[in-house]
Amino acid sequence: MGVKLNVEKGRISTGINGLDELLNGGFPKGNITLISGTPGTGKTIICFQYIEEGIKNGENCLYISSDQLINDLINDANKLGFSFKSAIDSEQLKIIFLDLGRQNIHKEIEEEIKNGTYDRVVLDSLSPLTEAPIWMVNNGNEVIPSTNSMTTTTLPIESIQATRVHLRHILAILKEEKCTTLLTTEIPEGSRELSRDSVSEFLVDGIIILGLDTTMDRRKLTIRKMRGTKHTLKPMDIMITQGGIKLL
Amino acid sequence: MGVKLNVEKGRISTGINGLDELLNGGFPKGNITLISGTPGTGKTIICFQYIEEGIKNGENCLYISSDQLINDLINDANKLGFSFKSAIDSEQLKIIFLDLGRQNIHKEIEEEIKNGTYDRVVLDSLSPLTEAPIWMVNNGNEVIPSTNSMTTTTLPIESIQATRVHLRHILAILKEEKCTTLLTTEIPEGSRELSRDSVSEFLVDGIIILGLDTTMDRRKLTIRKMRGTKHTLKPMDIMITQGGIKLL
Amino acid sequence: MGVKLNVEKGRISTGINGLDELLNGGFPKGNITLISGTPGTGKTIICFQYIEEGIKNGENCLYISSDQLINDLINDANKLGFSFKSAIDSEQLKIIFLDLGRQNIHKEIEEEIKNGTYDRVVLDSLSPLTEAPIWMVNNGNEVIPSTNSMTTTTLPIESIQATRVHLRHILAILKEEKCTTLLTTEIPEGSRELSRDSVSEFLVDGIIILGLDTTMDRRKLTIRKMRGTKHTLKPMDIMITQGGIKLL
Amino acid sequence: MGVKLNVEKGRISTGINGLDELLNGGFPKGNITLISGTPGTGKTIICFQYIEEGIKNGENCLYISSDQLINDLINDANKLGFSFKSAIDSEQLKIIFLDLGRQNIHKEIEEEIKNGTYDRVVLDSLSPLTEAPIWMVNNGNEVIPSTNSMTTTTLPIESIQATRVHLRHILAILKEEKCTTLLTTEIPEGSRELSRDSVSEFLVDGIIILGLDTTMDRRKLTIRKMRGTKHTLKPMDIMITQGGIKLL
Amino acid sequence: MGVKLNVEKGRISTGINGLDELLNGGFPKGNITLISGTPGTGKTIICFQYIEEGIKNGENCLYISSDQLINDLINDANKLGFSFKSAIDSEQLKIIFLDLGRQNIHKEIEEEIKNGTYDRVVLDSLSPLTEAPIWMVNNGNEVIPSTNSMTTTTLPIESIQATRVHLRHILAILKEEKCTTLLTTEIPEGSRELSRDSVSEFLVDGIIILGLDTTMDRRKLTIRKMRGTKHTLKPMDIMITQGGIKLL
Amino acid sequence: MGVKLNVEKGRISTGINGLDELLNGGFPKGNITLISGTPGTGKTIICFQYIEEGIKNGENCLYISSDQLINDLINDANKLGFSFKSAIDSEQLKIIFLDLGRQNIHKEIEEEIKNGTYDRVVLDSLSPLTEAPIWMVNNGNEVIPSTNSMTTTTLPIESIQATRVHLRHILAILKEEKCTTLLTTEIPEGSRELSRDSVSEFLVDGIIILGLDTTMDRRKLTIRKMRGTKHTLKPMDIMITQGGIKLL
Repeated sequence: MGVKLNVEKGRISTGINGLDELLNGGFPKGNITLISGTPGTGKTIICFQYIEEGIKNGENCLYISSDQLINDLINDANKLGFSFKSAIDSEQLKIIFLDLGRQNIHKEIEEEIKNGTYDRVVLDSLSPLTEAPIWMVNNGNEVIPSTNSMTTTTLPIESIQATRVHLRHILAILKEEKCTTLLTTEIPEGSRELSRDSVSEFLVDGIIILGLDTTMDRRKLTIRKMRGTKHTLKPMDIMITQGGIKLL
Repeated sequence: MGVKLNVEKGRISTGINGLDELLNGGFPKGNITLISGTPGTGKTIICFQYIEEGIKNGENCLYISSDQLINDLINDANKLGFSFKSAIDSEQLKIIFLDLGRQNIHKEIEEEIKNGTYDRVVLDSLSPLTEAPIWMVNNGNEVIPSTNSMTTTTLPIESIQATRVHLRHILAILKEEKCTTLLTTEIPEGSRELSRDSVSEFLVDGIIILGLDTTMDRRKLTIRKMRGTKHTLKPMDIMITQGGIKLL
Repeated sequence: MGVKLNVEKGRISTGINGLDELLNGGFPKGNITLISGTPGTGKTIICFQYIEEGIKNGENCLYISSDQLINDLINDANKLGFSFKSAIDSEQLKIIFLDLGRQNIHKEIEEEIKNGTYDRVVLDSLSPLTEAPIWMVNNGNEVIPSTNSMTTTTLPIESIQATRVHLRHILAILKEEKCTTLLTTEIPEGSRELSRDSVSEFLVDGIIILGLDTTMDRRKLTIRKMRGTKHTLKPMDIMITQGGIKLL
Repeated sequence: MGVKLNVEKGRISTGINGLDELLNGGFPKGNITLISGTPGTGKTIICFQYIEEGIKNGENCLYISSDQLINDLINDANKLGFSFKSAIDSEQLKIIFLDLGRQNIHKEIEEEIKNGTYDRVVLDSLSPLTEAPIWMVNNGNEVIPSTNSMTTTTLPIESIQATRVHLRHILAILKEEKCTTLLTTEIPEGSRELSRDSVSEFLVDGIIILGLDTTMDRRKLTIRKMRGTKHTLKPMDIMITQGGIKLL
Repeated sequence: MGVKLNVEKGRISTGINGLDELLNGGFPKGNITLISGTPGTGKTIICFQYIEEGIKNGENCLYISSDQLINDLINDANKLGFSFKSAIDSEQLKIIFLDLGRQNIHKEIEEEIKNGTYDRVVLDSLSPLTEAPIWMVNNGNEVIPSTNSMTTTTLPIESIQATRVHLRHILAILKEEKCTTLLTTEIPEGSRELSRDSVSEFLVDGIIILGLDTTMDRRKLTIRKMRGTKHTLKPMDIMITQGGIKLL
Repeated sequence: MGVKLNVEKGRISTGINGLDELLNGGFPKGNITLISGTPGTGKTIICFQYIEEGIKNGENCLYISSDQLINDLINDANKLGFSFKSAIDSEQLKIIFLDLGRQNIHKEIEEEIKNGTYDRVVLDSLSPLTEAPIWMVNNGNEVIPSTNSMTTTTLPIESIQATRVHLRHILAILKEEKCTTLLTTEIPEGSRELSRDSVSEFLVDGIIILGLDTTMDRRKLTIRKMRGTKHTLKPMDIMITQGGIKLL
């Protein structure tokens, strides 16, 4: 494991060229920020840049991938100019692939975050986790997520209540361990919502929206929310090049 | 506990610079007002200002948080310039965190409000409470919320009927104890509704809407409804700075 | 009980300044009119004016409240300049609060209307009643609302069929007793419908829509339908002051 | 029963001033026409005019009402200038009120139409009938509506399949008895559909749409479809006066 | 049965004046084309013209009607100038009425098509067939439509999977017997979709859309898709007269 | 089997005239690209061109068809100028028809891809596969797709979770075998989404959208996303002729 650097003014540098200035130095330490966008807008690229920045600063980083296999992720990162292999070898970066079929993926994430000492965490993407069913036990006064398959009540798969339970669980662990986190979320094309589950955006500390305008062949980044920071709401022009996203 | 001040003309000062004038002095005493907005519009900040004003006036305040842990809340308030620690120590302010997993959260809120003597109450946010399931007992003539887990009929989680039962329950307790209350509600981006549950807005005494225009980089506050007060319907320009929201 | 006045030409004065002229003298006697509006548009205020007018004319009035407690209603009315206490004491006005938890609220309303001799009835609001579940008994040829809890078939809570059964029941009783009635209904913001249940508007004799334009800071009243009366469809400008709503 | 008149050119006069000319003399004999409209657009008034015309021509008429009680219907007709009492006494007109609670209302309609010799039939309105549940028997090769309460399969209340079964049943009987029929249907405000059930419009022979423009204080009638007739699609201006609807 | 004519260049003449030219001679032989439209746009009329053309060319034709009874169909056709009686008598045209209540209507269609030697087939309309329930047998590896009522798994009535099963079944039979087919589908007013089931349009070889503009009193025909044919996408003006639809 | 050619710079030529240049030489080797479009926009034609190009380069190709029978596919391809018969005879191209009724179609696809050595794979279309039900076994810690019919839990047919499980399964196999793949998806007319299932677009490496403008009689192709490639977002004009689609 590498040295844990102190960042000045309680800010975590974003790793995106031009963005730190808009955020008074970077993400507030310990903030959980949602990265929202329709397909192909650069959500995973932002995660790569964020992790790369952490590696540069000697911070411990965790990348939780729910859709891409570890090797595919490393290859995609390579093509964009990010080389993660050495950081993985030196154990400064750990990449986990979530098998959504398993019933206790929350436990897996929980244990990994508690046992490690992560400065930066990325969950790419959040959406599958919030869709997982919850097996509950009616335990006298409490209705709690079950640790085994013995259940009496099941919350339906797509209920807002189940989503909220999952989210609070994940966010609580991240807050407890003081990880500065990025969560990506899928926005279906044509939807005006800020996340697929329509609840995350109210629970996180920050929201960054990535968008694109095909007719004008342009890409945009908007800081929709960032607790503890005075920020503009104006959409910024960006481009995707080698090294990732940069503000124009 | 502090001294209970009498406010002139039955009005409770809002704590938001410029808003009292638009409301003939403030919220009518005992009114329940909905604070509606999409993510990042300043709902929680309005709650902080409201509580801070109560502390200044020596009133007893209760802050019920359903999403943020107590320490996170206090830290976020600090960053904006509100220091709640001394009021908590002197027991003038009490902050409660609701564990939504528990089956009897309504009882928890009910007892707290009845046992205390609160002038100002904040519930941030209302949305999770209205989504909770209701375990009902078919008791001859009545169908009542169950006090234990013995049930015969369950209202489906997302029925408007369940929402209405929850809301009436909470509002009844607040009215009975004459607490002047703010309830925050999440409005998903792109929705034109005034609350997530689409029922609250008809049952409360007042509605304040917070909005934002990213293209123009501006924020707005609108008084949508306030029983017992003649008010304008025009959206007001606001800004978020140290000390919270102020009308421009 | 007070004297039952005869109104000229079979019309019941509305109590709203400027509206009687648009309706050829008032509501046709025995008509049931829907008062529709989004939150804060003045639906309850119209009911107050209607009842106040009835009291002035010495008519027997019934106010059925499904959301507000009796005392809150009386207080709110006071603040607007309507004093109902003396009419309640002299039994000219009766206010009922509906406990929606009870299984037989329809019976309660039915008995009250049949036993009294009401000229004017207000149901504020209709929406919760149409959402109530129906316990049915499959009785050979007929499927009827159950008088006890023994049922064999239940219509789902939100089916249009259940709504229609409730509505026809209430309307039938009112028609039978020849009460000139106002029913308020909640329209969620952004909806173009004329009632929450989307059925009432086809079954009633009249519809009055209250609306507002926040940008222009204006309020409107539209007579959407009134059987037995030739009327304009144009929206009218109104304002809310002491004494209630008045057409400009 | 009255004399059965022969109408020239196989056309049935509509009874609406100005409409016969647009339809080459009137409705084709035996046609089933949908009268569609949002609330208060004059659907029931058109039915009154249609029946009145039949009475004038000495034809046998049947008015099936699903929402209004017989006396209320007669009174409403009186106010508009239609007097049905004598036709009822002479048995030239029969008015039936459908009790939607009964399980076999289709049988009731079926028997009435088969036993009578009706030239003109009005069903006001069609919507409740298409919403009724269907109790089916799985009878080897056939799935048929049950004549008693013993069932094995129930089509869910709001399925398009149940709607289609109801509609085909009613339409088949009317076609068999060669009744020239009007069916009214409710269109919720803001909907662009042509009926509440969204199936009727494809099965009937004709569709007439009634609409209104509140801002311009105008009413419109459009012939959307009329099999066997060449017609304009243009919306016509109309007004509602004593004697009913007339084209301007 | 009549003589089976060979059509040049593998094209089947449409029977609609002006349309063959736009399609390089007509429908490609064996193509299945969807005729889409809102109510009253002429779908059934196009079917009449198509069949009439087949009769003229001495081809064997099958008309499957799901909504109109055989006699009503023949009468409607007569009024437009198509006389089918002689073709029916000479067995060149067969008209079938589908009783949607029967459980095995697919079998009925399947047998009719296999046993006959049809050049042209019309199914008017497709929509009810795709809504029929499917009784399935879980047979080891396969889930197949049941030939009797013994089932273990039922696909819900309105699932896209059930629709796809029905469609593939019908289309497979038609392709196997090399019938050049028209299938009509209902598009609810205001919908932008190309069929009621939203799946057909992807499985057929061609789509023709019929539309109308009431304000301008005009009718349109658009060739949305036609495999094996280069065609314009532009909407064409059409009119309905004696003899059916003709392009202007 | 033919010779496996090495493509320069790890790119797979698309086979569409003008597209390779926009993609830096073609699809990145091993990429999975979604071909999205409403009906009749040319999705299957793009697949033909892609396969034809593979045959020309001596690559092994697999065409999985879920909607069209093998012979129909070959005939349609012939009409456009693609002759696949010789490639099939020489075993360079294999066409599979998926029988969606079978419970283990995933296994079928999985085995075919693993046993063959395919450079290019086409799945036309993806939509039916994502709609298939999943029979799951609750196996202690894991919930896995069942290999037989013994199940304890079934994910409902239209849940996003089931879709995601199917997709990950298919994509994992394709990635493992390093097949450069095209998946077609149906977009219902009027929808702004990029796939029928609204999940695929987030999991694939590339998205190409085909569209059309009927009023202007034009067709468009847009590269919405392509991992590992810098590309324009601008829609390109295209036409469909003999030989398929070509950019103008």
